[in-house]
Amino acid sequence: VKASDLGEFGLIARIAAVAGKGASEDLVAGIGDDAAVWLTGGEYAVATTDTMVAGVHFRPGLSPWWDVGWKALAVNISDIAAMGGWPRFALVTLCLPPDTAVEDVEALYEGLQSAARICGGVTIAGGDTVRSAEFGITVAVIGRADQRDDEPLILRRSGARVGDVIAVTGHLGDAAAGLRRLDAGADTDDPLVRAHLLPRPQLAAGAIAAANGLRCAIDVSDGLLQDLGHICEASGVGAVVRGPDIPLSAGLLAAYPEEALELACTGGEDYQLVLTGPEHLVRDTLQEADLEDAAVIGEVAEDPSHAVRLLDEHGRDITFGRPGWDAFRS
Amino acid sequence: VKASDLGEFGLIARIAAVAGKGASEDLVAGIGDDAAVWLTGGEYAVATTDTMVAGVHFRPGLSPWWDVGWKALAVNISDIAAMGGWPRFALVTLCLPPDTAVEDVEALYEGLQSAARICGGVTIAGGDTVRSAEFGITVAVIGRADQRDDEPLILRRSGARVGDVIAVTGHLGDAAAGLRRLDAGADTDDPLVRAHLLPRPQLAAGAIAAANGLRCAIDVSDGLLQDLGHICEASGVGAVVRGPDIPLSAGLLAAYPEEALELACTGGEDYQLVLTGPEHLVRDTLQEADLEDAAVIGEVAEDPSHAVRLLDEHGRDITFGRPGWDAFRS
Repeated sequence: VKASDLGEFGLIARIAAVAGKGASEDLVAGIGDDAAVWLTGGEYAVATTDTMVAGVHFRPGLSPWWDVGWKALAVNISDIAAMGGWPRFALVTLCLPPDTAVEDVEALYEGLQSAARICGGVTIAGGDTVRSAEFGITVAVIGRADQRDDEPLILRRSGARVGDVIAVTGHLGDAAAGLRRLDAGADTDDPLVRAHLLPRPQLAAGAIAAANGLRCAIDVSDGLLQDLGHICEASGVGAVVRGPDIPLSAGLLAAYPEEALELACTGGEDYQLVLTGPEHLVRDTLQEADLEDAAVIGEVAEDPSHAVRLLDEHGRDITFGRPGWDAFRS
Repeated sequence: VKASDLGEFGLIARIAAVAGKGASEDLVAGIGDDAAVWLTGGEYAVATTDTMVAGVHFRPGLSPWWDVGWKALAVNISDIAAMGGWPRFALVTLCLPPDTAVEDVEALYEGLQSAARICGGVTIAGGDTVRSAEFGITVAVIGRADQRDDEPLILRRSGARVGDVIAVTGHLGDAAAGLRRLDAGADTDDPLVRAHLLPRPQLAAGAIAAANGLRCAIDVSDGLLQDLGHICEASGVGAVVRGPDIPLSAGLLAAYPEEALELACTGGEDYQLVLTGPEHLVRDTLQEADLEDAAVIGEVAEDPSHAVRLLDEHGRDITFGRPGWDAFRS
């Protein structure tokens, strides 16, 4: 059996069966959430890691090195945000072909350093540099979660309950549209291309959600329908999303009027948060976080098949060819 | 300027100039030590990351996948040991070609899991799996250091002082000899090959050294002379090593009688610790850690050029062609 036969999520299930054995009782959240959470010294640590490989996760020659650095850190910070935590320190590993220009590496680190400063005040504390045939960057971010009554205030994929509303923190689809435009030769100043290259993690929204008592979130990295599907599976529920309520930017609608909804639902890499919870808590959170493009887009429903249904303005089901990104199949 | 022109350590210096800016005042040790150390919630966290790339750090087809998993975690735990800390949680990132056999991935995780259980009781808490053209594994380990009077008990490269003795915790050269034999077709049961494939991090020695008040260590990953050179540069001292006092295994001497000393001095990957400190504290540490192959091999000396001198039995200098491993030049 090959990795590509199982797909990313089948492979992760096989890995978890081996790697999850004998975990410390201090581990609160492990494999299968956006970040791991453990108790140490009376504090809850939140830790995650994400990799970008040239040609798979970005376009060498099209994506500026500064932007690759920004994004490599930002996507990790987004995972911390999706747990309701705060990032503090980062470890950065570079896999470099020996003929890589040092100036490109410096530009990459300038981007990393800018994301570190702007997104939560992260310190780059160490890492590793190794030789490889292809360029890759792996970042690990370690942070913390607040606590109340000795319990961590965190958001988990398993926290959705029937009757919860489902919200997103901002526009979806811009990043996928931007990647398409980048491939088609658009400038890196194009607003959609910028959404693809320079995602902004929703740190404040995640932390406010956790402080307000919400218990469930995920960040949209692989596509709304697929990422919401992870919540449904982990929580043992289904979801109903109203397509017309999904927030779409004017730029996306102008550039891809026919495909805007599909890009928003399956495109991924917007790094908005999907939140679920009681309606008043969700609406309070969106308001406190001052998110002008956020929207309530659906409800959590009882569904033994844990499906995510997408409905049009007449309440009819919409389906797309693929739900989102799979590392080994896409 | 290319990475291969600067070499690994020149590149790291350039990276540190960018990435080291604006560090949190909670950061105790950052880029340039075996692991990072920071203060969080009244506790000192110790964190490190290391990568193994197929064809660079191990021999695909010759190194069993189980052993690759063991080593990927063990080398990180060795970095924690070199700081005098204790490992607790690991994040594991796999870069996989899509046609990788899932059974190989499971064997890799069995090895990781065994190292996790045996070397300090580590919990695999999460990670990432991505597609790439070549296989690579990046592990990050987060642990903790003890403290006394609000100060962390840690070992740093900058802690060597003139007059300190220099000790190693066990045999050197076996791993380099084992790699040579593996390439020549030796079985993976060969004791030297096992030293290469399945290193044992010196966790107890590091922690006992830190508790005994020692302040300086490094693990031998790139070669004794080169790694000791990092101590000399960070501490602003020189070192004198007596070749005949370097502990060599009977197996190494039998297999490579003429080259044993060179393999021990420049080979790397033994993951023994080099410790420096006042002689009585160093000898107490070696005895308490019950290290039968450990030895005091030299002294820290005043030397504005921060050189590492290697002397033969007559006190004459010995030099070798290269001091050790450089990621971008070796």
